[in-house]
Amino acid sequence: MKVETLRWFNNRLEMVDQRILPAAFEYLSYYTAASVAEGIRSMVVRGAPAIGVAAAYGVALEALRLQDKLAVEFKDGMEAGFTVLAASRPTAVNLFWALQRMRRVWESVAEQAPQQIAQRLLAEAHEILAEDIRINKAMGAHGAVLLKDGARVLTHCNAGALATAGWGTALGVFRSAVEAGKKISVIADETRPFLQGARLTAWEMVQENIPVTLITDNMAGYMMAQGEVDAVVVGTDRVAANGDVANKIGTYMVAVLAKRHNIAFYVACPLSTIDLNIATGKDIPIEERSIEEVKGFRDYHWAAEGVKIRNPSFDVTPAELVTGLITERGVVLSPDAQSIRKLMMGRVV
Amino acid sequence: MKVETLRWFNNRLEMVDQRILPAAFEYLSYYTAASVAEGIRSMVVRGAPAIGVAAAYGVALEALRLQDKLAVEFKDGMEAGFTVLAASRPTAVNLFWALQRMRRVWESVAEQAPQQIAQRLLAEAHEILAEDIRINKAMGAHGAVLLKDGARVLTHCNAGALATAGWGTALGVFRSAVEAGKKISVIADETRPFLQGARLTAWEMVQENIPVTLITDNMAGYMMAQGEVDAVVVGTDRVAANGDVANKIGTYMVAVLAKRHNIAFYVACPLSTIDLNIATGKDIPIEERSIEEVKGFRDYHWAAEGVKIRNPSFDVTPAELVTGLITERGVVLSPDAQSIRKLMMGRVV
Repeated sequence: MKVETLRWFNNRLEMVDQRILPAAFEYLSYYTAASVAEGIRSMVVRGAPAIGVAAAYGVALEALRLQDKLAVEFKDGMEAGFTVLAASRPTAVNLFWALQRMRRVWESVAEQAPQQIAQRLLAEAHEILAEDIRINKAMGAHGAVLLKDGARVLTHCNAGALATAGWGTALGVFRSAVEAGKKISVIADETRPFLQGARLTAWEMVQENIPVTLITDNMAGYMMAQGEVDAVVVGTDRVAANGDVANKIGTYMVAVLAKRHNIAFYVACPLSTIDLNIATGKDIPIEERSIEEVKGFRDYHWAAEGVKIRNPSFDVTPAELVTGLITERGVVLSPDAQSIRKLMMGRVV
Repeated sequence: MKVETLRWFNNRLEMVDQRILPAAFEYLSYYTAASVAEGIRSMVVRGAPAIGVAAAYGVALEALRLQDKLAVEFKDGMEAGFTVLAASRPTAVNLFWALQRMRRVWESVAEQAPQQIAQRLLAEAHEILAEDIRINKAMGAHGAVLLKDGARVLTHCNAGALATAGWGTALGVFRSAVEAGKKISVIADETRPFLQGARLTAWEMVQENIPVTLITDNMAGYMMAQGEVDAVVVGTDRVAANGDVANKIGTYMVAVLAKRHNIAFYVACPLSTIDLNIATGKDIPIEERSIEEVKGFRDYHWAAEGVKIRNPSFDVTPAELVTGLITERGVVLSPDAQSIRKLMMGRVV
């Protein structure tokens, strides 16, 4: 089954409701920037690249919705749409990257009629979606080379088709390796509190018959100590100019353990996730989400009444723990400020 | 509220059903060795010291049940009782320690009538329970000295009153520190899959008004990187002769992170948990429990269908990562084979 995380259908955006997977596979429909923003905030859609694509469609939907207004009303409405989308989630830079790209397109045709602007923005959203899949496949090809035949690869959270427009970043590397004829097996951290590993990564791998073993997050060290992990590949929500990596909470822990056990730790990272405006990881804003998520799962709560709760949704893995960044332009080993600058300037690294 | 994890009441053993805490606080009654063994296996009672006390009462209950039989039948029945109790859980050495102690008492009065043997075994079980609380308080006093006023201490799983006959090992250190007038705040890992941290440690600390913050297991690294953890104190299920520590799955991960951040990592460890017959941690049997536990929690399952699952219940932290063992005889810093041998021989270390 090919997973279409987001799709344009009957002049609306449809997104798989990832909150109810794997129990149910359903699409929700979106017509406005505000509803897309709410879909991002509530994690109907999640994963940095998918959030970027969703935000691009949010801008296009808003333009379509406002295209019969006067130019001044159209402009004000569009600005409000950008604002609500930008406020949906703070950590993934792809959100801001996609909004900036849509704004530039808008500015390039600002003199045209709203209907024409709307069509141009919709075309750009389609292009961002198609590009995302192309980029993932390019990353997959570069990353697949790093995995030996028979590799047992641990991943955290879901950097799969469901986190992108298709294929996936980290899981895209696994798909590409399998496509290239390598036997790969995946170890999926369940990834509390939202359980993206247990629900989404496990589901995606089962769909494709890629062998996958589920563990709780606190078993990763045991598996490594037993010699059952050959490599780690994760996604990322933002990479700083010096190579520090923000990703789902718990990624840092996996990286520290991998270092201790001399296991390669790779980050699958489209260029749109690299933020040269952020010098180091400590400047990346870390979203703290509702404490309800940690009390239990969905409406089922098990935590003792009266306990305080923290819920940082991301952490930062320092560049020194990263064996390599897998990008659509190639793999940057031991990333640092210099090699990342070169990468972004388009040089072969 | 004083927690009586196990109590002797109306000629039967009662144990708090820890599977349903904190939603409900209920005692279950036990009359036979087999039912106590099932209570241990199904985790009505858990925690190495509490398992030891429960097993001792299991032996006493079996003797009471069989005390009107002929001597030969009594003996055969008792042997069967020992066997079923020994098979209940493999990792915690306190189980075997308590059974061995009860066997020695039995052997010392083997010539007496079954009724007299039963009374002697019951008295020994009472003594093991009382001793456990005395030992915990001695450990607490030694451990409290290690925590500075205002310390924010992370713990994993539940090494509390609920894991012992009362007071607790790791949480006993916190109780003793608070009793000594120190302000202590606790960070509790939720401890998947059985959630002893979210359900039991958080509940115990709330009962005693000790400030406690709940996090998912994968947030420990983030909290340390943020400078929000001053020390770690955990319990243990078995310590090898060289100081390697078996404890709840995820403990190793916390120890590796603590080392990276130069945070002291203490293990609260009654002498009954030290197993000189095991040379190093790699010889400690690690229990793999039912995969049902990892699919979700209780009857609520969220894992994708068709995924393979692992469920090792413990891991081993090498002695080199242990800042100190807190015992009832004092604190052994940087434990190794030599210092542990001295400790067990009763010398001041």
